[in-house]
Amino acid sequence: MKAPRAAGKSRRGAETIICTVDVVLLSLLDDSLHVALLKREREPFSGALALPGGEIKAGVDLSAWDAAARMLKAKTGVQGPYLEQLATFSGPGRDPRGWSISVAYCALVSAELLQNAGSALHVVPVNRLPALPFDHRSIINVAVTRVRSKSQYSSLPVYLCGNRFTLPQLQSVYEAVLGEAINKVSFRRKMDELGMLEPISGAFEVGRANRPAQLYQLRRAFRRRLSLLERAINAGH
Amino acid sequence: MKAPRAAGKSRRGAETIICTVDVVLLSLLDDSLHVALLKREREPFSGALALPGGEIKAGVDLSAWDAAARMLKAKTGVQGPYLEQLATFSGPGRDPRGWSISVAYCALVSAELLQNAGSALHVVPVNRLPALPFDHRSIINVAVTRVRSKSQYSSLPVYLCGNRFTLPQLQSVYEAVLGEAINKVSFRRKMDELGMLEPISGAFEVGRANRPAQLYQLRRAFRRRLSLLERAINAGH
Repeated sequence: MKAPRAAGKSRRGAETIICTVDVVLLSLLDDSLHVALLKREREPFSGALALPGGEIKAGVDLSAWDAAARMLKAKTGVQGPYLEQLATFSGPGRDPRGWSISVAYCALVSAELLQNAGSALHVVPVNRLPALPFDHRSIINVAVTRVRSKSQYSSLPVYLCGNRFTLPQLQSVYEAVLGEAINKVSFRRKMDELGMLEPISGAFEVGRANRPAQLYQLRRAFRRRLSLLERAINAGH
Repeated sequence: MKAPRAAGKSRRGAETIICTVDVVLLSLLDDSLHVALLKREREPFSGALALPGGEIKAGVDLSAWDAAARMLKAKTGVQGPYLEQLATFSGPGRDPRGWSISVAYCALVSAELLQNAGSALHVVPVNRLPALPFDHRSIINVAVTRVRSKSQYSSLPVYLCGNRFTLPQLQSVYEAVLGEAINKVSFRRKMDELGMLEPISGAFEVGRANRPAQLYQLRRAFRRRLSLLERAINAGH
């Protein structure tokens, strides 16, 4: 009688590698970056807060990106956000079930969208993370560093805004992400250079004592694609 | 009698995902970026030129990075180069054997080191690639774009130099990678800002009609770690 093959061993004798995706879903609440966590329903680490994620299904997903989008929708209700590959984390020690690969993604959404998403979400500030299983703390730290660094040279922070926003609102989003003040004239010049915004005809925000401010939206071509600056947003003024 | 399980199916019924790494080994020859290719010894695509790579071995490798370094050493003889994760490519269509993930890495070495590496290497200009199997052309294109973009803001091109070099030599490496001339005064200021170089005491290169030029080397702390600029190398002069 042939001995049963140990769990986790493939036909070819090599140990099967567990292939997962994890999504760092970020938003800006109270001027600080927050990440969405979910209580794990299964072992390992059942009951712990962790990043939304799960195994890639070869029969279902057309890519790791697809798996991340599927998982995000199923587990958080967030659909069609800006979602980019962050980095891949791997090794024998990061998951107690065995050698694993996680292709990590970063998604950016508006606070409004996140607040309307699944009520099961625990939205916590990235600088006050609870204890997290796997290497999820490292993954979040890589995501935050990447978002801050990329925001200096691109339209990335616009995905943290709602569908329509004024230029002062967008500037304060950039300032919150970068953690520093930006010169207003320079900021407006950079936004022109990025060429990603269009004014919404006849739409103004009437705020407090100020005169009405023009509302803008992202041009269609930039809904999923970053626009890049030649020089950093806070350089050259 | 139980039907035999189809090849590529794991114990849990899900299709096994093939986990590989691929390495884009780049160098600068005749002032243009070249990539090292190898003739494949096995199916699929036996005999075709392709990136050095192979399957991650869970029993051997401690991470995908480890697998990439192992593969690079075994297949090209290149050991301990600057090696960074590029991106992960995945899906059902990129490998005829089934759903696959490739964690792609980028390695940078000097022309001298590459020329002393395995003679089985086919070193070709990145802008004149032959037909390549899998999605290796896309992987190379992503690597070249990344190297060019990162070179504007970091010490990355120094890994394309040998162990010792003069500042004019390093400047011409930056210029070849970026495809544009750089102001000499600005270049020297940026190299100071990067703080990665140290003069080699008493070592000069005596060239042609010019006076002897100081030879430099990379400080120990930067042998594997990039140094970053606040502003692009070609900005601000």
